[in-house]
Amino acid sequence: MIKHLCVIGTGLIGGSLALALKKSGHVKQITGLGRDQRRSLENLKKAKKLGVIDNYETDYIKAVPHADMIFISVPIGAMADVFQRIEPHLQAHAIVTDGASSKHTVIEAAVEKLGIKVKQFVPGHPVAGTEKSGVEAAFPGLYEERRVVLTPLEENAEADIHKVREMWQAAGAQVDEMGARHHDLVLAATSHLPHVLAFALVDSLNKMDDADEVFKYAAGGFRDFTRIASSDSTMWRDICLNNSEAILAMMQRYQNELDILKQAILASDGEQLMKIFSDAKRTRDNFCM
Amino acid sequence: MIKHLCVIGTGLIGGSLALALKKSGHVKQITGLGRDQRRSLENLKKAKKLGVIDNYETDYIKAVPHADMIFISVPIGAMADVFQRIEPHLQAHAIVTDGASSKHTVIEAAVEKLGIKVKQFVPGHPVAGTEKSGVEAAFPGLYEERRVVLTPLEENAEADIHKVREMWQAAGAQVDEMGARHHDLVLAATSHLPHVLAFALVDSLNKMDDADEVFKYAAGGFRDFTRIASSDSTMWRDICLNNSEAILAMMQRYQNELDILKQAILASDGEQLMKIFSDAKRTRDNFCM
Repeated sequence: MIKHLCVIGTGLIGGSLALALKKSGHVKQITGLGRDQRRSLENLKKAKKLGVIDNYETDYIKAVPHADMIFISVPIGAMADVFQRIEPHLQAHAIVTDGASSKHTVIEAAVEKLGIKVKQFVPGHPVAGTEKSGVEAAFPGLYEERRVVLTPLEENAEADIHKVREMWQAAGAQVDEMGARHHDLVLAATSHLPHVLAFALVDSLNKMDDADEVFKYAAGGFRDFTRIASSDSTMWRDICLNNSEAILAMMQRYQNELDILKQAILASDGEQLMKIFSDAKRTRDNFCM
Repeated sequence: MIKHLCVIGTGLIGGSLALALKKSGHVKQITGLGRDQRRSLENLKKAKKLGVIDNYETDYIKAVPHADMIFISVPIGAMADVFQRIEPHLQAHAIVTDGASSKHTVIEAAVEKLGIKVKQFVPGHPVAGTEKSGVEAAFPGLYEERRVVLTPLEENAEADIHKVREMWQAAGAQVDEMGARHHDLVLAATSHLPHVLAFALVDSLNKMDDADEVFKYAAGGFRDFTRIASSDSTMWRDICLNNSEAILAMMQRYQNELDILKQAILASDGEQLMKIFSDAKRTRDNFCM
């Protein structure tokens, strides 16, 4: 049970967590915290109107000292600044956690900005989302039966990790733990790479002379395949900048696979194509059973 | 109105056309025609049991002479053989059309095998489908509000093209016409390339040492992105072999785009990444409105 949750970044991820915890009765009060800027304020007002948060603040000193749990869900590029603003007001019993899709640079920023208080930061990543963004897209069921990965620090107290775990379980998720670098490699493969590939496909077709006609004949398969290219650009820019090493390695691996396919097509090697396609089909069918 | 339709290849595409035409009352009788082999026979029996076809034959001489319209929906590699078997029994008033996703090699095969009767062949391609295959996956609404592209031959009679057009309209589709080579280029971009990319992604991840763990953390975006990798392997092998030139050109264009992205990530060029991702998001959002 959380007495007072403070959500920094009340969008799809933060908003859905707030709604899920309200629904399960795991939280008493939720404060949204954002910047004193037009877009941020509009979003906080909307979040309050939609019942996602109980109240909101734009001044860290008015929100952070009251929080038992702080959930940060802003683009990775903005995390260091948020850690810096939290630090002076963070109570000794309070826990900080986050929802960033890439962990190792977030942890570096936390170490730098939170100093000794970094022991209160339990890094996490809910492996869930849709291509939509903003608080209007939030819904309480987003985390049901989804996985949340915690990448705890050596400095973390077991009790704090446990509280973060309980929070996500209350939201319906299954919680695992792994090292930050390993998390970043796994997510580069299953999430970051596919997003980059989808953005690249849409951009590549868009540059064709007859792009309008091309998109006219795009069918359901294309829509599914490119759905993730409708994801938030800022968020994905930041993921690419912060998990660059693993993403570049996965892109290279992928280009090697494309080279194999190109060779097989060029050589009219039906046997090789059949093997690659049926292996892929079998794998995909098994994993989506 | 079609008196007697003969469907060769009663799977998702052929079966759905049969169901749609039955539903709209555009056809009197539908015969399924297949090979006298276990799998083919089982499928024909299933199609009859499901009410997709009225009866079936495995001998071309028993079905083709009675048909006013013949719809061929078999993997492209089997098309030449089907044309050859049809030719001796094809009535002068009968029309042949097909559902292949790549047109120019199908047309070459028809010219070779149908001879003078090629004028009765109106090539077509319903731009619709799901990742499922087989007659169990067929449903009457598959073509509703979807596009069908006809790539008529110079030899075709206007009246024959019109009848094929009417058939697809009765199935709920919107019918366009274009040249075969142009069709193959457009479809390489919006359908063939995405399928190849999805097969390549699943296969590439499957080759990783920790593939099982990787797939465990695959979320909704990954499922959508790779859905088309569950498509029929034989069909896609044949498409790659028969539209190789256009597919290879699109793959090269795509790899160039990946190179640009890799450079931007390597150089931590946030501005360039932001431009590519937001252009892609805008394009995708507009086209899926």
